[in-house]
Amino acid sequence: MKKSIAVDMDGVIADTETHFLNWYEREYGVRIGVHEIQGREENEMFPDKTVARKFAFTPGFFRSLPVMTGAVEALKTLMKSYDVYIVSAAMEFPQSLPEKLEWLKEHFPFISWRNIIFCGDKSIIGTDYMIDDHIKNLDFFKGTTIMFHAFHNVNHNHHQRANNWDEVLKLLVK
Amino acid sequence: MKKSIAVDMDGVIADTETHFLNWYEREYGVRIGVHEIQGREENEMFPDKTVARKFAFTPGFFRSLPVMTGAVEALKTLMKSYDVYIVSAAMEFPQSLPEKLEWLKEHFPFISWRNIIFCGDKSIIGTDYMIDDHIKNLDFFKGTTIMFHAFHNVNHNHHQRANNWDEVLKLLVK
Repeated sequence: MKKSIAVDMDGVIADTETHFLNWYEREYGVRIGVHEIQGREENEMFPDKTVARKFAFTPGFFRSLPVMTGAVEALKTLMKSYDVYIVSAAMEFPQSLPEKLEWLKEHFPFISWRNIIFCGDKSIIGTDYMIDDHIKNLDFFKGTTIMFHAFHNVNHNHHQRANNWDEVLKLLVK
Repeated sequence: MKKSIAVDMDGVIADTETHFLNWYEREYGVRIGVHEIQGREENEMFPDKTVARKFAFTPGFFRSLPVMTGAVEALKTLMKSYDVYIVSAAMEFPQSLPEKLEWLKEHFPFISWRNIIFCGDKSIIGTDYMIDDHIKNLDFFKGTTIMFHAFHNVNHNHHQRANNWDEVLKLLVK
């Protein structure tokens, strides 16, 4: 039987970091550099703490996310050896649910609806592996964790880090 | 730490059986009795096998489901001793996602968004208990199962059966 992997969406197969910085520049005319936000909490990436949540509640935000570099090919490769599930903590943003489904259908059409999970917290996910950028999800996971690099996790090192999808494949595919 | 329970929606906290029979009568002018469908597969509850799926894809179907008798009080009672998660295999019917969220907000406002999971198959759900009417979900579950009575499961007896919410409480609350 194949081992199973829970793959996060935002910050892992979707490049939310770039998207947030692009939306901020468009709305406020200021380009914040990637280096400026390293080590900050997600709600502290902008001077006004309410901005990121405002964007996340804006219709179209999740539908227009860029795909993370290498994610499409990496998931196709992983699916040869693993049962791959997309697990997104989307329930806080109800308007994101249909947008996330449409986004997956467009960019990852090879993922079946059977393998998609939208949840609140991820504590009851029982896969063998979890690839996620948030320690709040990884810390409560019972299986093997891979922490996907993100600005908000650079100072946390108690999970196996992968800086990009190539590094994930090196860890999981022999 | 509290034990966790995954509680199904359709057929467990929502009375889909009554709803299907009501919709059928409204659309086709024929009242099918509960006794007539006992032991049938879900897609065979009506003479035309496509009807149940047609209803399930109709906007408003899931939003207007009646609440299962006893479900509200039972979940409130269970939440005193357990972490209760609502786990619905909703991904096959994308239009149902916002409807199911609104329905839960109306009828089960005490359930946090953190405890709601919409998925495809349920094989990766890692709670301690699962209450579900479908053996396809219960058979692959690693924890303790409770099969909630439904017309389509009357001939299956390899899971602990509960005929109603009172019987669930007798099994789970000492």
